[in-house]
Amino acid sequence: MDIIESAIKKIGTINANHGKAAKKHLDNLAKPAGSLGMLEDLAQRVALITGDNIPFLDKKAIFTFAGDHGVTAEGVSAYPKEVTVQMVFNFLRGGAAINVLAGHAGADVVIVDIGVDHNFNEVKGLVDMKVINGTKNFMRGPAMTREEAVKCIAVGISLADGYAARGYMMFGAGDMGIGNTTPSSAIAAVLTGKKAADVTGRGTGISDKALANKIKVIKEGIKVNAPDPLDAVDVLAKIGGAEIGGIAGLILGAAANRIPVVIDGFISTAGAAIAYVLEPKVKDYLFAAHKSVEIGHTALLDMLGLTPILDLKMRLGEGTGAAIAMTIIDAGLKIYREMATFGDAGVSGRTAPE
Amino acid sequence: MDIIESAIKKIGTINANHGKAAKKHLDNLAKPAGSLGMLEDLAQRVALITGDNIPFLDKKAIFTFAGDHGVTAEGVSAYPKEVTVQMVFNFLRGGAAINVLAGHAGADVVIVDIGVDHNFNEVKGLVDMKVINGTKNFMRGPAMTREEAVKCIAVGISLADGYAARGYMMFGAGDMGIGNTTPSSAIAAVLTGKKAADVTGRGTGISDKALANKIKVIKEGIKVNAPDPLDAVDVLAKIGGAEIGGIAGLILGAAANRIPVVIDGFISTAGAAIAYVLEPKVKDYLFAAHKSVEIGHTALLDMLGLTPILDLKMRLGEGTGAAIAMTIIDAGLKIYREMATFGDAGVSGRTAPE
Repeated sequence: MDIIESAIKKIGTINANHGKAAKKHLDNLAKPAGSLGMLEDLAQRVALITGDNIPFLDKKAIFTFAGDHGVTAEGVSAYPKEVTVQMVFNFLRGGAAINVLAGHAGADVVIVDIGVDHNFNEVKGLVDMKVINGTKNFMRGPAMTREEAVKCIAVGISLADGYAARGYMMFGAGDMGIGNTTPSSAIAAVLTGKKAADVTGRGTGISDKALANKIKVIKEGIKVNAPDPLDAVDVLAKIGGAEIGGIAGLILGAAANRIPVVIDGFISTAGAAIAYVLEPKVKDYLFAAHKSVEIGHTALLDMLGLTPILDLKMRLGEGTGAAIAMTIIDAGLKIYREMATFGDAGVSGRTAPE
Repeated sequence: MDIIESAIKKIGTINANHGKAAKKHLDNLAKPAGSLGMLEDLAQRVALITGDNIPFLDKKAIFTFAGDHGVTAEGVSAYPKEVTVQMVFNFLRGGAAINVLAGHAGADVVIVDIGVDHNFNEVKGLVDMKVINGTKNFMRGPAMTREEAVKCIAVGISLADGYAARGYMMFGAGDMGIGNTTPSSAIAAVLTGKKAADVTGRGTGISDKALANKIKVIKEGIKVNAPDPLDAVDVLAKIGGAEIGGIAGLILGAAANRIPVVIDGFISTAGAAIAYVLEPKVKDYLFAAHKSVEIGHTALLDMLGLTPILDLKMRLGEGTGAAIAMTIIDAGLKIYREMATFGDAGVSGRTAPE
């Protein structure tokens, strides 16, 4: 737990004064105060996080953590488990949605094997941080040991530290793992206290019958493992997944390095919820990219008090929503840096009537 | 009316076969069908419009039509009328929000004087298409003559034709005009049949008292002028504005040239509603950028049957929402063009359970 505790200790409190200075600058730009809505809010939040009055987030990386799930044996996904491995190769060849959208956002993609059930043998471009060869079927017992869960979180933290040291200024968190909406729904149920049926959706697209089975599997898994909602590592180990742990660690590490981190959809938000239970201050460093179609996502966003930037009816994962949201945050930062003030522009301010 | 009738005659019906081919391609990409949500819908709609299976929208232009409004004499805006002129100069210097965000989207900004109450005397960079020096106060009588309204629409059509001929493939419609939420609300009330109070908001930010006055002004203006809701030119002339007419024309011209056009917020959508009453087929060429904070916007979007791409709580105008929305449409087009198919990627398709 040393690396986790040490990261948590480094997470600072946000200094509200930076936010005030940023707000003052935004209000002085030649437009009605607040008229750019969320673009202004995003720029202000970034200034708060970085402590910089002119935040400039040049180098960006989206981390796509890949892991497999033993619970796929219960028929919870529309796709065969082999797709996780196949998609990792697709990422490395640059043909996946995350490659296209990260390119669109000007972000690097970092593909991390943290728990895929396949030995890649040093494939070029893949970051080998393997902790496990897939989780065990959590309907029958714990998905991982506590030690493995800690290792997964540590992987995320060390990646955050490493990329921060290399000058990266914004992170995105994404996932790949056939079956991983199942552990995410289980985590959402345990951490929010909601019923499994109220936080479980169709993932990549299952039928009514398969959805009913998925809910049954989640309920049974929670009953069998009895995870402690106040002990995030226990929850992650018993009903979580390796990639979810990696994302939780990335978020802790980002916050420790004062780096804004954009969480993608449901799976990333489950990771964020694990990080939040470990240290609630991480919330101030998080940006929720979009509202996923998965119903459990909203429950987790409410728990974290986050408002999603986009609602594009996306449900792919990989970090795709994070990539698009980064382009919106960038737009807000450009407004902050490049717009003329009322004074510069020779534009009159408000008059009556107020 | 010749240029308007001729543009309307050129507007073709969308060929649904192009949409089917596009959908087939999107479903064959290595991701669960439809999992990129609106990104896929946007790409499919562009393919439908352009009739091209691999739509590529390289050259983009955002037209910001500027005009003044005599109704500002009634105290309907939080800003003095002079700001329209000052903002035009700010646009030309590149310091405004639309300059920053169009740059972000890779779009050119075209600033059009169609009705500003100022003689710019051939200022560099300004497109001089002046029809009037501001509208008259529509609370006392018609804002423009019918002839002037026709000229405003013709300006938009000729700009669309000119930029289409120069190879531009996507347009954005934006506005600048102190006081122009007032005619937009009046248009929304007349065309949707809703009460003035249900389609009137605070514009750049007026008080409760000023809002009550604004609603009174709109009601009185509609009563005095009695515009015919089935005659869009009559509505535009009596209670509209020059920039709203220019936008309506741009939309007719875009549709006539099979060019997708992204409408910004409330004022642009009022222009789109005028175009729609003239020729309902324009709807198929429109993309609604975002949901404005102005309540009348939703009424107009419902009338047009359009779903806004974004909801970023923006209410600036200028074309700023259109610029951001263009980046989202671009993301959809990149997905369409750049992603690997299941076959290319060696990724397995769906299995049971459905």
